[in-house]
Amino acid sequence: MTQFTFDAPTVIRTKRDGGRLTDDAIDWVIDAYTRGTVGDEQMAALLMAIFLRGMDRDEISRWTAAMINSGERLDFSELRRDGRPLALVDKHSTGGVGDKITIPLVALVVACGGAVPQAAGRGLGHTGGTLDKLESIPGFTAEIGKAQVRQQLCEVGAAIFAAGDLAPADRKIYALRDVTATTESLPLIASSVMSKKLAEGADALVLDVKVGAGAFLKKEQESWELARTMVALGAAHGIPTRAVLTDMSCPLGRAVGNAVEVAESLEVLAGGGPDDVVALTVALARDMLELAGVDARDPADALRDGTAMDSFRAIVTAQGGDLRAPLPKATHSETVTAPRGGTMGDIDALAVGMAVWRLGAGRTAPGEKVQAGAGMLIHRRPGEPVAAGDQLFTLYTDTPDRVGPALAELDGAWNVQDRAPESRPLIIDRISS
Amino acid sequence: MTQFTFDAPTVIRTKRDGGRLTDDAIDWVIDAYTRGTVGDEQMAALLMAIFLRGMDRDEISRWTAAMINSGERLDFSELRRDGRPLALVDKHSTGGVGDKITIPLVALVVACGGAVPQAAGRGLGHTGGTLDKLESIPGFTAEIGKAQVRQQLCEVGAAIFAAGDLAPADRKIYALRDVTATTESLPLIASSVMSKKLAEGADALVLDVKVGAGAFLKKEQESWELARTMVALGAAHGIPTRAVLTDMSCPLGRAVGNAVEVAESLEVLAGGGPDDVVALTVALARDMLELAGVDARDPADALRDGTAMDSFRAIVTAQGGDLRAPLPKATHSETVTAPRGGTMGDIDALAVGMAVWRLGAGRTAPGEKVQAGAGMLIHRRPGEPVAAGDQLFTLYTDTPDRVGPALAELDGAWNVQDRAPESRPLIIDRISS
Repeated sequence: MTQFTFDAPTVIRTKRDGGRLTDDAIDWVIDAYTRGTVGDEQMAALLMAIFLRGMDRDEISRWTAAMINSGERLDFSELRRDGRPLALVDKHSTGGVGDKITIPLVALVVACGGAVPQAAGRGLGHTGGTLDKLESIPGFTAEIGKAQVRQQLCEVGAAIFAAGDLAPADRKIYALRDVTATTESLPLIASSVMSKKLAEGADALVLDVKVGAGAFLKKEQESWELARTMVALGAAHGIPTRAVLTDMSCPLGRAVGNAVEVAESLEVLAGGGPDDVVALTVALARDMLELAGVDARDPADALRDGTAMDSFRAIVTAQGGDLRAPLPKATHSETVTAPRGGTMGDIDALAVGMAVWRLGAGRTAPGEKVQAGAGMLIHRRPGEPVAAGDQLFTLYTDTPDRVGPALAELDGAWNVQDRAPESRPLIIDRISS
Repeated sequence: MTQFTFDAPTVIRTKRDGGRLTDDAIDWVIDAYTRGTVGDEQMAALLMAIFLRGMDRDEISRWTAAMINSGERLDFSELRRDGRPLALVDKHSTGGVGDKITIPLVALVVACGGAVPQAAGRGLGHTGGTLDKLESIPGFTAEIGKAQVRQQLCEVGAAIFAAGDLAPADRKIYALRDVTATTESLPLIASSVMSKKLAEGADALVLDVKVGAGAFLKKEQESWELARTMVALGAAHGIPTRAVLTDMSCPLGRAVGNAVEVAESLEVLAGGGPDDVVALTVALARDMLELAGVDARDPADALRDGTAMDSFRAIVTAQGGDLRAPLPKATHSETVTAPRGGTMGDIDALAVGMAVWRLGAGRTAPGEKVQAGAGMLIHRRPGEPVAAGDQLFTLYTDTPDRVGPALAELDGAWNVQDRAPESRPLIIDRISS
């Protein structure tokens, strides 16, 4: 194969017209884009064509492999902690609103005997990124090198790091998708998640696949197909993979944003916090520990007795963070109160995600700084009683002119009603390889 | 309306999901892209979404107006030639293979009493650009200022110039479409053509809309819709506009490329040249003169008596070109001969266009230099008798390794057969505003 065989317009045209991309075409375009000979504008056009035309299982598999091959695949198999091999397991969420689960979960799994090499991402579209949230802790950095990741895995059991050299093609494509409205695509989500996760050196993988209004894929059947696709990709690369389908019609917990989500995570690690956040954290910890073959303690105990909090402090401290310093607070807040009494109805997760993005918690351009203090507190969750005049939501931002657009997003996204809304199970199903 | 009302991802998402873009959204995105606050990668994603989702008449009209408003609209109404106002009329072709018609046509219309302010383009996709062709004439430049355009209109009756300041938004978008496989889209073609043509100061406009395999739009009904759309856009801006639908299943004439098309144009201006090129040139000249209200002489006479050639020499000389110097020749040629005797069948215009593009006559990246000598001669046109071993095609390029890919494009695009292929009328229909 000579380089002359392919050119970007021809590859784009094939997908634009609904055709299949060959293995060679995929390898070429991912490599050329990583090296910069295919431009951002060409990849953006290809991504939109993929968004609207789709890719089949084989194309997704090859696209994922090409992204893994664009960088290095980590290997921690020779590491030891207290003389024993590590039970390396990781979790990924397809992205929800108020989804801070990774923050308490990593510490909880470590407290129960697992080891977690967590390559995390920044915010994408209407969902926040774990790194953006954690970086609201004064001093915390996710920009740590491979040597430090190895050292932390041995000494504190986990590292939460920017994917960096892992799947560099994905890093470029991920940033591009965020600004070109090509995020909510099954093939692009599956390949992005799995290229990073298969490169990061875990021996087992649990995927939290969101279903409902706040998920990237709006149709429930698309979330199922995403789960099946990712589980198959994991299996094809020899990594035991389990998808847990969870409800994302409503935001998770009471806090949505950056620092406010860290604060809520600390409540969970201290044995408190909202029921749904606690339940999902414990359930996913059990899945991860089972898949990693660790059966030492029950995660619920580790939240209760403070050992999960100890693990979290150790991880944060290892990465430069200072939990004694106060978390950043936004300069401006605005509160929405109840127009009548009754019961809080459903709260639209997508609208809340968009509102928080408007407040400055997310980006409109790649590399933009997010506001650590931007976010929202939900004072009444669905089904909770409301009196007229009660505070329902408080919005936080450093840029007061963003309050208007954020309130506009919330418009029609909630209501106070006479009866409690229908309750939905948080965990819908599991799919294993 | 504040600038904060819009952001690129939201505008892209609307079109991606099949929605209509509002007038304000269109004005915003065209202005922001012209100023650079919307990036190439964002516009590329939007263009692909428009390609696959379409735009309605009102969206196209607003998109066109926004592109005109991104620059200046020329006005030559106060100019005089020999004391009389100019009969300003222009022609545009939607792009064909071997379509050098503009070159003899501009001179012919001038010789018959018209004045032509011709803002021309460079090659796009598989079709060549008039400027790329003319710039193969030693010394010729299309980069002339507005003062020179005005002077030439008064002194030699025409100027053929790079659109430059006209519709700068279109210039950026045109270059982007070429490298992102978003050329063959009705709304993008209509708005691109009409934004440049409505800004260039002509009082009447004739559009040569191509139909058939070598046209950008493959389906005949799309070419009709394109013609109707552009005629309506012209009318809405107060410019009498006529579309002439012409056959482009087969390349025009015997020469396809840059310098080779100039050479064929000179044959036509000298009273010779291929029948189809002569017929189309004369027909379009009559349409232009009629629309401009000029009824002095018959264009066929002006080809016969050398006055059209005189006009062409005057225009080229005014723009620095030297027609006494030899036209550039490619360093390498390759000839395809007939495997058997018979009659030449149909020749696929798209395949010939792609082959010539591969030979170096067109671009794969914006700003790339094209080869002046690259191109192809067609020695036997459809319906002409062929003896075994006759030369059928000669390919020209300065880069011999491009011959293989070009020959691959030609593969299956022609055949020698027992009977003459069905003949098609060159001019299919006319649509007027």
